[in-house]
Amino acid sequence: MRQVKLFVASALLVATCAQADEGMWTFHNVPTGAIKQKYGVDVTPAWLDKVRNATIRLSNCTASFVSPNGLILTNFHCSWACLDENSTKEKSLLEDGYLATSREKEIKCQTQVADVLVGYEDVTAKVAAATRGQDDKTANETRKKTRTQLEQACEQASKKDRKTGPLKCETVELYQGGQYYVYKYKRYDDVRLVFAPENAIGQFGGDPDNFQFPRWCLDMSVLRAYENGKPAVTPNFMRIDFNGPQDGAPVFVSGHPGSTDRMLTHAQLETLRNVDLPQWLLRNSELRGRYIQFGKISEENQRIIGAPMSSLENGIKVRRKELDALHSDELLARKLKDEGSLLQKVKANPEMATAVGNPWADIQKAQDIEATISVPYTYLEAAGGFNSRLFRYARTLVRGAAERAKPNEDRLREYRDTALPRIEQTLGASVPVYPELEQLTLSFSLERMREWLGPDHEIVRMLLVKDSPDSLAAKLIKGTKLADANVRKELWKGGEQAVSASDDPMIQLAQAVDAASRAVRKRYEDEVEAPVQTAQEKIAKARFAALGTSVYPDATFTLRLNYGSVQGWVENGQKVDSFTRLGRLYERATDAAPFKLPESWIAAQGKLDPDTKFNLSTNNDITGGNSGSPLIDRNGSIVGLLFDGNIHSISGSYWFDEQKNRAIAVHPAIMRAALDQVYGAKELLKELELAGRAGGT
Amino acid sequence: MRQVKLFVASALLVATCAQADEGMWTFHNVPTGAIKQKYGVDVTPAWLDKVRNATIRLSNCTASFVSPNGLILTNFHCSWACLDENSTKEKSLLEDGYLATSREKEIKCQTQVADVLVGYEDVTAKVAAATRGQDDKTANETRKKTRTQLEQACEQASKKDRKTGPLKCETVELYQGGQYYVYKYKRYDDVRLVFAPENAIGQFGGDPDNFQFPRWCLDMSVLRAYENGKPAVTPNFMRIDFNGPQDGAPVFVSGHPGSTDRMLTHAQLETLRNVDLPQWLLRNSELRGRYIQFGKISEENQRIIGAPMSSLENGIKVRRKELDALHSDELLARKLKDEGSLLQKVKANPEMATAVGNPWADIQKAQDIEATISVPYTYLEAAGGFNSRLFRYARTLVRGAAERAKPNEDRLREYRDTALPRIEQTLGASVPVYPELEQLTLSFSLERMREWLGPDHEIVRMLLVKDSPDSLAAKLIKGTKLADANVRKELWKGGEQAVSASDDPMIQLAQAVDAASRAVRKRYEDEVEAPVQTAQEKIAKARFAALGTSVYPDATFTLRLNYGSVQGWVENGQKVDSFTRLGRLYERATDAAPFKLPESWIAAQGKLDPDTKFNLSTNNDITGGNSGSPLIDRNGSIVGLLFDGNIHSISGSYWFDEQKNRAIAVHPAIMRAALDQVYGAKELLKELELAGRAGGT
Repeated sequence: MRQVKLFVASALLVATCAQADEGMWTFHNVPTGAIKQKYGVDVTPAWLDKVRNATIRLSNCTASFVSPNGLILTNFHCSWACLDENSTKEKSLLEDGYLATSREKEIKCQTQVADVLVGYEDVTAKVAAATRGQDDKTANETRKKTRTQLEQACEQASKKDRKTGPLKCETVELYQGGQYYVYKYKRYDDVRLVFAPENAIGQFGGDPDNFQFPRWCLDMSVLRAYENGKPAVTPNFMRIDFNGPQDGAPVFVSGHPGSTDRMLTHAQLETLRNVDLPQWLLRNSELRGRYIQFGKISEENQRIIGAPMSSLENGIKVRRKELDALHSDELLARKLKDEGSLLQKVKANPEMATAVGNPWADIQKAQDIEATISVPYTYLEAAGGFNSRLFRYARTLVRGAAERAKPNEDRLREYRDTALPRIEQTLGASVPVYPELEQLTLSFSLERMREWLGPDHEIVRMLLVKDSPDSLAAKLIKGTKLADANVRKELWKGGEQAVSASDDPMIQLAQAVDAASRAVRKRYEDEVEAPVQTAQEKIAKARFAALGTSVYPDATFTLRLNYGSVQGWVENGQKVDSFTRLGRLYERATDAAPFKLPESWIAAQGKLDPDTKFNLSTNNDITGGNSGSPLIDRNGSIVGLLFDGNIHSISGSYWFDEQKNRAIAVHPAIMRAALDQVYGAKELLKELELAGRAGGT
Repeated sequence: MRQVKLFVASALLVATCAQADEGMWTFHNVPTGAIKQKYGVDVTPAWLDKVRNATIRLSNCTASFVSPNGLILTNFHCSWACLDENSTKEKSLLEDGYLATSREKEIKCQTQVADVLVGYEDVTAKVAAATRGQDDKTANETRKKTRTQLEQACEQASKKDRKTGPLKCETVELYQGGQYYVYKYKRYDDVRLVFAPENAIGQFGGDPDNFQFPRWCLDMSVLRAYENGKPAVTPNFMRIDFNGPQDGAPVFVSGHPGSTDRMLTHAQLETLRNVDLPQWLLRNSELRGRYIQFGKISEENQRIIGAPMSSLENGIKVRRKELDALHSDELLARKLKDEGSLLQKVKANPEMATAVGNPWADIQKAQDIEATISVPYTYLEAAGGFNSRLFRYARTLVRGAAERAKPNEDRLREYRDTALPRIEQTLGASVPVYPELEQLTLSFSLERMREWLGPDHEIVRMLLVKDSPDSLAAKLIKGTKLADANVRKELWKGGEQAVSASDDPMIQLAQAVDAASRAVRKRYEDEVEAPVQTAQEKIAKARFAALGTSVYPDATFTLRLNYGSVQGWVENGQKVDSFTRLGRLYERATDAAPFKLPESWIAAQGKLDPDTKFNLSTNNDITGGNSGSPLIDRNGSIVGLLFDGNIHSISGSYWFDEQKNRAIAVHPAIMRAALDQVYGAKELLKELELAGRAGGT
């Protein structure tokens, strides 16, 4: 562990303990020695295997198996999409919560999947061999083709493997190109909703309390994996220890942190600070205003924006605090200094100097280009000008048709064969599309595209000579049939011929802007991504030479383990306790959302013990994507359900602040009390308790 | 002029001509020699006096007298408030425009004033004498008291001066405390609307075209000053030369640039970049979204938000580009370097070293404090948490009552005796207050205050334990009587007794948050403003020692002259011409706002010459507050009406980019054609032409 700390963190940390509990470790490189030394816990290969096999990657979150019958524990907020898909504007499951009183009443989450990592293979050498000697642009293309080939070959092989059966295979880039792996997943694509509480307690405190601690959120939901129409058989599960952990106890988080930027260079951080984050925040702050005002019109509107609003506000808070973190001159100065010293090491070694050169300067050049194409990329290729679910369907259909006509490895990566089943699942899902919401987001984004590309940009002139953003959006949404899953399925099946024959106005829009969008993507890939990729691989080489793999890679929404202990922190000289308790929830409630308790909790108050532990804080190093992760004790039992970080955890995108960065979890005691006393979920509780006694992992 | 360039500009400028036409010069320090040398124009004391006496400061803009009968030329957008005050939700003068067909139909602008600078006095020595030897905090208080005394004495004296009659006296801080002046104004407080075009042509292109060039805006309006119920007698006026200027001709702008930050230190620019600008942009981008969505509900709503929306979008664009400018590392690095070299000069002179020390370090310390109190200051003292016209009335009444009970010089400066008439004008103006709009802005700001101060802040808890931002706003707006000007006048007259007896909920809110607001203001004044003020005066001393007054002071919304010539610029290798012409307006129009022409212009197309010049660009160094400024030729005739800068002009807040920073004006030819052929404003045109023949200035 001594060399583990990334250079940014090492500088800013005022260390009080010898080693920081920092790091999002791949399961093939867990620092077991350091864990043993600090916490006296033996993290054995068997322990790791069991945890890995019980940990789930959802499409957007982490989760875990908690019974042998496919029962899945995750966060309430990880099920927003499922709740939203199964709501109408008259009745919102997000608001009301849901409890399946029998297996038949478990509701399909149409766009959810549950993946379990069952194996992995290091393919670094294969990727390196394929790209050797190529220029940046060619190497960038070859790398993608190679990854597509590796994934395809892996999935083909798994189909013939009786032991595993068909697997989903994904290549993973670790250490920014320093390593490549193929990760192999068992996928459950039939995931159903068993239980979710009301939004008012699932997200008690709403956006104001988001990323805060002390906290009182029952941010849990229960799903179930099905296979062949029956509950999946999942012998690899973890038991829940409803007593929860002691203060100070060692705890582990197994999960899928989505993305961190700790290895970015100074130049890349400046692009984030100067370009990407401010533009995103401006755009989405306005969208937030539009949502809020739209929601005031009626209760139906309020329901319609429930889920997108929660996601949006979460995103705004994250990026706002990320921007604050990047405004620390100390962070950027330290980054520069560390880059300088690594460069010195490179220069001191003639062989390395030849192989590596000055990749930081190469990245700086690419960033200068990125700054000039960021706006058209955002509005056209990233569809920031066409913010609409229906447009996204249209683009997928238009591009999917064109790409599927090409050989697998020549396609845009997102349309490779191994990715198609997931696309088909999404296109085929009968989920509600609210024309009012589509109108809002599409009109908004067209208007901002006009602002940022300028009224005289060719695409803007093409679209808005006769129309306003409002009138164009209205025509498109009124005219398109893409809200109908069957129409989408037919167009997907019909391929290029069906798509080019379509008179659907949204399809026509996607066609009309496709060439310009692809052109800016191509420029980005050739002039930014390609040189950056080459340079990053060189930096990885230099870093490995200096530090070995005693460092961990940035998060990539792949399985990681981190360790730490239950602990609070000191804020402005005040100690923040590790646990919150139920009593304070009732004191803190007000008469108005988001601090208003649901009826069920008001009614149950007399039955509940106010001393029940509610949420807890630990110093595990987590980030978005870890939501829903099990908090695991030394025995492999679940002692908490991770759902958030404190406000300081957001700067974890760039460095780990041992003093203040904390993870926040739901305490098992409140889960049990809620299921038992508030919701009367006797069957569910029985299943969990039975599983607990059976042992699980 | 050789030493004129500010250090920031000097570095970033790739000079092609020997001298930059940079600078916002006080009328008591015009670089006549440099002007003569570059343009061969003699700027004589008589020329300056005439221009000064015909130039007007409106409450928000610049304007000029253009006839001997009080006729005033300014921008359309400078009359938004007047148009808005005289609109209802059923009929908007902003949308429809207005032409008074007789003097009786000229409409009072209730909150407008027209000030003409008739004299000034250097009081630097008096202020210095008063504060000599005092610590920062005491000096800061003494400085304010001294300014109040000087203003009071000046106004008293003017009342006895038969030659001038009563004047408005204001102290002005120039060179950030390097100089203090008393400026003396003749004030016209009866200003009426004569003519304004429709918004659709006054702001053709709306927000997308704002700060762009080429451009086609008839951004003009005509007002008239009245005295004693009759048109004012204004022998000091400027004639309009409807032919306009030649390309390349020397031109001058006389006006009131509002504020620039060219002399701020590196630390202060970082505060702007890291704290002030991002927070303002986030907040107001959301407000923009709320306005837009609100406006979609009905045409009435659209009318209600017309004026505030235009102001808001302008503010967003300005700050967005200011933030971009501050993201230039070159700008900040150069600033640091120049500060270092000035500090070296200080250190090299023992006497100066003792007197000045290191004021940049003092400012840095104050900035660190500012960063910690910026949020409560914004939401409480700056009322960012109470964004409502009715709250602003309430605060003025509550504070005005408390402050007027104190001796004049002990009051908060904004309640000094010389400021009271303007407060009374504003409180007494019968202007429409739209409860729907108040609800929107107040609910929005309460919600953001809760987000930024946190749900557990004492003020937030006090206000929002039982209420949501919406329900609290609704109660306040429904309950308050402050929309009635007579109620406000009575409360103002009644002073402390009336205010403390009031059961008006908005008054009670203003009272309830007053102590906390004053407390954070006091902290700001003592711990930030006071040391910064002392430090800035020291920097001014060092700068004067190095450069004399061959530099110009930052803009302070006081009268300035700048010079330049009619010219375009080169953008991405393309020459941008100096003039636009009418024909292209019709080609560029679309069927939808903000590119939709008003009916009057569609009807008149056949009568108009498409070659008529419309807008023009010059390299004058201008900023917000210069709007409505006359563009003046060597003869003192008006050859354009300044209304905007190009997009590069926004970075003019921090430095002047000679290559790209351009001012934009309405060409007199289109003014004449519009008045004559589009609006049939025969009488008005006759008055202007008569004035032109009479000569004017």
